[in-house]
Parts: sequence; structure tokens; C-alpha cells
Amino acid sequence: MNRKFKVGLIRVLTTEDEEVLQSHGKQIMEYFPELEVVTKCIPDQYEGIHSPELGEIAIPKIVETARSFTDVDMIIVSCADDPGVAEIRKVLPDIPVTGGGETTVALALKYGSRIGVLGITDYAPQAYMRMIPEQMILGRPEGVHSTLDLMTPEGKASVLKLGMKLKEQGAEVIALACTGLATIGIAKDLEKETGLPVIDPVMAEGMFAYFEYLRKK
Amino acid sequence: MNRKFKVGLIRVLTTEDEEVLQSHGKQIMEYFPELEVVTKCIPDQYEGIHSPELGEIAIPKIVETARSFTDVDMIIVSCADDPGVAEIRKVLPDIPVTGGGETTVALALKYGSRIGVLGITDYAPQAYMRMIPEQMILGRPEGVHSTLDLMTPEGKASVLKLGMKLKEQGAEVIALACTGLATIGIAKDLEKETGLPVIDPVMAEGMFAYFEYLRKK
Repeated sequence: MNRKFKVGLIRVLTTEDEEVLQSHGKQIMEYFPELEVVTKCIPDQYEGIHSPELGEIAIPKIVETARSFTDVDMIIVSCADDPGVAEIRKVLPDIPVTGGGETTVALALKYGSRIGVLGITDYAPQAYMRMIPEQMILGRPEGVHSTLDLMTPEGKASVLKLGMKLKEQGAEVIALACTGLATIGIAKDLEKETGLPVIDPVMAEGMFAYFEYLRKK
Repeated sequence: MNRKFKVGLIRVLTTEDEEVLQSHGKQIMEYFPELEVVTKCIPDQYEGIHSPELGEIAIPKIVETARSFTDVDMIIVSCADDPGVAEIRKVLPDIPVTGGGETTVALALKYGSRIGVLGITDYAPQAYMRMIPEQMILGRPEGVHSTLDLMTPEGKASVLKLGMKLKEQGAEVIALACTGLATIGIAKDLEKETGLPVIDPVMAEGMFAYFEYLRKK
């Protein structure tokens, strides 16, 4: 038996709660049983990244965390903004590195040329800006500013309402632009509500990790 | 136990050789053991599709073949030109349908913005024209006009030489533009030769079938 393909996953949210910490890795291992995911989070950033400034502060910490993995076949920065992905590639050129944003956008492009981008910030994550600057329809759910707001019935209703609005504006597919939306598993509800394919960033990260595994096999 | 996710796969090459017929389905089931692939080929087209005219002739036969599947969860047209994919979507709106072209292009976009397109025709398949018209660097290996030419040492050398040329022209990733190139398993050799990621259309089709399976689960 070959050993499993080992993925080092970086959470950009500091947490001591083991369940929160492991949630993305656990989802990916459920989707792709061939993968073994080891998770670490960056230090001293309990609010995660929800502004460009917080992204800047996080990047050196993300690179340091990437370097601290030993014996992994791949690294995922589990955030839709792909913070530090380019920087890690420079310091660890021999290992595949990806993030939640570029993987979500790539999968979304299979499903349509006009892409509804549904996140919790007023700016689009960098891969969305780079890969689909003119194909993007950007929205933020009313009243939702953090993943905590998504846990309430009002927050969830607001996300579904925005999904319908993006569809009315011409979106052929919805790309979630925050891994927090993956954590709460809203993709399925959004698909039901809108009838559009919805791309979940944590599933997207996992897809490309599995793709790297197949290509290396 | 749930039953497996059943994929109806259409070969656009008529063949009575069971091994040739099943080769794409077999590859996909090896990559993704959760999928069950049932293969059919279109009638009376022993040369497959290697010109726009042959594509036109094939489309009604492909749609008819798609309609003949019973009890499948998804349909794949296993050809980099995605012939009939749009037409099948119209007549079978309740089932996911995809092809080798759009899936290969979507995966390639994760790896770079300048995409080397390596096929065996002088024209690019339609998804490549639609999705990456300005990001494409097109090439055809010298002396190679059909998949048969690829089986010779000269043919293979010619493919590897073209891979290097596409890299020199700025390609950051190579998207194979013919499933015949997947059949002969050249992606791995091309990756070794060029150092670039190479996207194999049969693997790409399988990736998106697995993605549909995960989304439905």
C-alpha cells in the first residue's frame, strides 16, 4: 500500500477550538478519502482576514507556517483570498501550493462565463480580480459582515436573497468568496434556492489537492 | 450502502474493439473509484472527429446516444471539442452534461493565465476558443495528424518538442486538446520534459464527474 497523499492545510484564523481548527481538513478528507490533511493555524489573528490590512499582516505568518510543515506533499492556504500562496511558492518551489480562491474560480469557469461572487466583504478576493475581472458580478449579503452573522436565520435568508439577485443580474454560476460560507454548508441550500451551480471553496481546494495526487500517482 | 454515481460516457469514435471502447471509462474509474462509467460509441464514424465537418455529422448521433442511456446520473462526451454537449443539455435539461474540452480548460486556468494548447488539429476545440481566446498558444506536433501517429517514437518525440516550444513561447501550463493524447498517457512524459503542469482531458472529465457526485451527495 502506498501512503496517503499528505496535505498541509493552513487556517488563517487563530483558534484554540480543535473542532473549528480541523473543520476544513475534516471536510476535505470526507470528500477525498485518499488524502490525509494536517491542519495548522497562524498565530495571533483571532479575527482571521476580513480586510486587505489584515491580509498583509497575515502573509509572513502564513509563509512561516508553511515552512513549519515537514513531510507534506502539498500545501493549501484555506482562504478565498489565497493569502501567501504566491509567497509560499517562492520559498517552497518544489511543492504544489494552492488556495480557496483560484481553485473556486477555476471550477466556476466550467459552469458559466458570468460568475456571481458571493462573499462577506465589499471587495473581491485577489484570484477573482485576476482571473475574472470582467466576468464577475459581485455581491455582499445585507447585514452580513462576518461568518458569525451567517449563523443566524436572518443571515442565512440574506445569503439566499443575494443568490437570487445575482441570478437576476445574469450569473450562470455562483462562486462563494469566503471559506466561512463553506464551513456552514450553505452551497446546497443556495443551489436549491437558485437552481444554479454553487462552488464551495473548501470542496474546490480539495478537488485540486486530489488532482495533484492523481497527477503524481 | 449508496449505489455508485453512474456516468454515461460517449466515445465519438466508432469501434468494435472492446478495449479501445472502454479505455476512457476504465481510466476514469481507476482515478475515481466512486464512479461507475458505462460507455457507448456513436455509430458509423470510424475516423472519429478530426475536422469541423466530421463534428457536424457526429452531433445528432451523439445526442441520440445520450438519449439512449437509462438510469445515469451524468453524461460525458469524451472529446476535447465537446461535440453535442450544448445540444444534449437542451434535450436532457435535468442531468449534468460535460465534455473533455471545457473541463480541461477550467482546470488549466488554475495553473496559469497563458495556456499552451497541444492537440492534433490546426484549429482549437470550441471550449478553448470560447473560454481562453486571448490566453491560448496553439500548436500541432510536426508530422502528427492522427492519434496513430502518436504511437510511433517520432510522433512522441514531436509532441515533447512542441511542449518545449510552447513553454518557450510563454505557456505556464499545457492543456491537451485531444483525448487521444490522454489515451496514450503522454501527460506524465510532457510534465517531465517541460516542468509545466499538463492537463489530461480524460482526467479532467473525471474530475468534474466526481465534483458532480460530491455536490449531489
